[in-house]
Amino acid sequence: MSEMNKILLNDDEMPRQWYNIQADLPHPLPPPVKKDGTPIGPEDLAPVFPMNLIEQEVSRERWIDIPEPVLEKLLLWRPSPLCRAVNFEKALGTPARIYYKNEGVSPAGSHKANTSVAQAYYNKVFGIKRLTTETGAGQWGSALAMACQMFELECKVYMVRISFQQKPFRKMLMRVWGAECIASPSDQTQAGRAVLAATPDSPGSLAIAISEAIEDAVTSKDTRYALGSVLNHVLLHQSIIGLEAQKQMAKVGAYPDVVIGCVGGGSNFAGISFPFLCDKIHGRDVRVLGVEPAACPTLTRGPFVYDSGDVAMMTPLLAMHSLGHGFVPAPIHAGGLRYHGVAPLVSHVVREGLMEAQSLPQLECYEAAMLWARTEGHIPAPETSHAIAAAAREALKAKEEGRERVILFNWSGHGLMDLTGYEAFLDGRLNNYELPDQELQQSIKDLDGLPRPPEF
Amino acid sequence: MSEMNKILLNDDEMPRQWYNIQADLPHPLPPPVKKDGTPIGPEDLAPVFPMNLIEQEVSRERWIDIPEPVLEKLLLWRPSPLCRAVNFEKALGTPARIYYKNEGVSPAGSHKANTSVAQAYYNKVFGIKRLTTETGAGQWGSALAMACQMFELECKVYMVRISFQQKPFRKMLMRVWGAECIASPSDQTQAGRAVLAATPDSPGSLAIAISEAIEDAVTSKDTRYALGSVLNHVLLHQSIIGLEAQKQMAKVGAYPDVVIGCVGGGSNFAGISFPFLCDKIHGRDVRVLGVEPAACPTLTRGPFVYDSGDVAMMTPLLAMHSLGHGFVPAPIHAGGLRYHGVAPLVSHVVREGLMEAQSLPQLECYEAAMLWARTEGHIPAPETSHAIAAAAREALKAKEEGRERVILFNWSGHGLMDLTGYEAFLDGRLNNYELPDQELQQSIKDLDGLPRPPEF
Repeated sequence: MSEMNKILLNDDEMPRQWYNIQADLPHPLPPPVKKDGTPIGPEDLAPVFPMNLIEQEVSRERWIDIPEPVLEKLLLWRPSPLCRAVNFEKALGTPARIYYKNEGVSPAGSHKANTSVAQAYYNKVFGIKRLTTETGAGQWGSALAMACQMFELECKVYMVRISFQQKPFRKMLMRVWGAECIASPSDQTQAGRAVLAATPDSPGSLAIAISEAIEDAVTSKDTRYALGSVLNHVLLHQSIIGLEAQKQMAKVGAYPDVVIGCVGGGSNFAGISFPFLCDKIHGRDVRVLGVEPAACPTLTRGPFVYDSGDVAMMTPLLAMHSLGHGFVPAPIHAGGLRYHGVAPLVSHVVREGLMEAQSLPQLECYEAAMLWARTEGHIPAPETSHAIAAAAREALKAKEEGRERVILFNWSGHGLMDLTGYEAFLDGRLNNYELPDQELQQSIKDLDGLPRPPEF
Repeated sequence: MSEMNKILLNDDEMPRQWYNIQADLPHPLPPPVKKDGTPIGPEDLAPVFPMNLIEQEVSRERWIDIPEPVLEKLLLWRPSPLCRAVNFEKALGTPARIYYKNEGVSPAGSHKANTSVAQAYYNKVFGIKRLTTETGAGQWGSALAMACQMFELECKVYMVRISFQQKPFRKMLMRVWGAECIASPSDQTQAGRAVLAATPDSPGSLAIAISEAIEDAVTSKDTRYALGSVLNHVLLHQSIIGLEAQKQMAKVGAYPDVVIGCVGGGSNFAGISFPFLCDKIHGRDVRVLGVEPAACPTLTRGPFVYDSGDVAMMTPLLAMHSLGHGFVPAPIHAGGLRYHGVAPLVSHVVREGLMEAQSLPQLECYEAAMLWARTEGHIPAPETSHAIAAAAREALKAKEEGRERVILFNWSGHGLMDLTGYEAFLDGRLNNYELPDQELQQSIKDLDGLPRPPEF
């Protein structure tokens, strides 16, 4: 009780700038390219994104000011608390101190709103009236819906049909925030109609929904597209997580031995870890660990290649770890980690040797999430459970070695809208879905014939 | 931006004592009685509650220490933030400053956990191994499940059958926290079997579920019953809300002109307001306003009487405002406000002239909740929307009068698990359910023949 287990920042302590790791990379990030290998220019992206975000995408400025109207919206729930998980530590019997950054406090329940408000703002000041996007489980769609409402933009969300049917609550949430959310494939785009003609009962996929959202954006008046992860500007907006965590750790005179985040597209992981990687690049001793599902082991088993972000190859080719753009991950409950690629910046820092990656099986993650819920109270999202399980591994290693360690991880979101996964786990209906090597080899054949990123 | 809109307390600033308004009441609270009017003694309650809570129920000590193990659990999410709703104020165009205490940050999403951890602790130290309770929408059941998990008690929740079927998520939440949750009426109690024999397809009711939970408690080994509102010790545990709010308001040099809370059983309202009523009793000028649904206008239209807490009259008679123990409120979405009585302590302070009460129609509450969600982001629970709507009324009155006022209300919980009500509202499927006078007159006939509380 004498120690502070919740470390808070006041409004005036919230960072006023984002951290851009591009300023500190030992080697420059390979640029996005067309299928023939020629670099993509800003003008190629202009129909899809507003120019102010395209400029941010390629910026190498270390610090970028957060605009005042964005700060005002972030302050509705930020700074987020940094907490020490004393009860979880006790349950593990570890000498390690485990700190977690609680991003579940945002209105939509995850870190996604950190970038949705920024993206809505930049589109607004660029004169855009309407945003389109895709969403799987609905975390990103709802965060963007909220942000568009706050900046008075229209918002249309193409939600993967199977999730649209299975997760009605997220759809309702988008509607409360004024967005139109429809099931994808839809009859409202050529891409959607083509899929429906071939497969009338298609359950949809993120790849199809991306195609619909981009087509809608480039063919509609005053409309652009918004992406919830992967791109540099998205990771930039998430850096506020790690910047706050640094201030908070400093308040208790602590510094992490290891910084952990789960990795899907890579944005929450980058958010917590890149500010610490800045320290590392400048000589500080800190480990950084990205955790992905064994069912979708992009960083640990996927090659570093040029690949597209969607199955239809509508996006530019990005230099990243990928399992192949045609890869369909097994139906694990951590829907936000079911993506074939990982952000170019995250892939790049792996290649730079600045971070480690680990893949964990689903059941271990649910076991860790259950222990968390029963000791710390808060119910983690299935994605977040990967970071918790990795933190538990680190804590048990510390116990084995009898060493006091400081572990920091990003608690990326709550699981109050993902309880069906917990029920399936408790019923014994879940399994581990380890990706078979043969399936991986088959999937990365999609990469044949694509240009290769330059060697260091 | 220069002003602080989020006022936080550190762990070491959390109150270490609860405030007991019984110490300050101008007139003593009428005791609970049996049907013949004779007072209930502690021994009458001993089969239902542990003696340490019974002692707390009748205590007139002004300050009661919060036990260390309870403090430790409360610190998992408390102190809760006090925020200024700047965006909501702007939307209303009011000169008033609106502050809200965010109790939605608890793991179960509402204020209920403030008392569940205390009740679980007191039962634990009294040697109890197992708790039973009833739950309607599931807020209380899930809060108690979490607390029992933390203090290693078994927990059995009788959930009103219709909610059990319509709200599977809350049921899953209880299961994650290790509780057994079954639909009521069940075949596991005499009370349940009797109902099922008469009405095999009974949708259940809170009254039936209470009967089942109490029967289970008094007939099972080492088992007691836990109630989530109404009783004095429950309101005592909630006083931490108002005590924190007082410290937080003081930090920005403000004091409320009016303190608002929604009223069902009365515990969240008492939690935010009783510490301010203490100030009022000691001469400070502050208005206190309880808000109830027009469909269940207990304080505004129900008489002050002796009535039982359940339809089967298994509980003692409590001196309170009541619509009659047989009253069945219309199916408004604010399930937590659908109760025929109001806590004796809240009813008593109405009678003392210390507070005002107001009833609001459902649609006005949803309109206020929508404006809130679209300006402040966070989605309020349907119960909480009543406090928001009342705060909006006060803010608009201030605008009319051109007066700066300070409004404080309790944001009792989030609505992320109550989105079906929002969908019904957006579809135009909701109405106002004003209680017809004839129905009220019919319902309070149940009170005929019961003893009457003493006059002042």
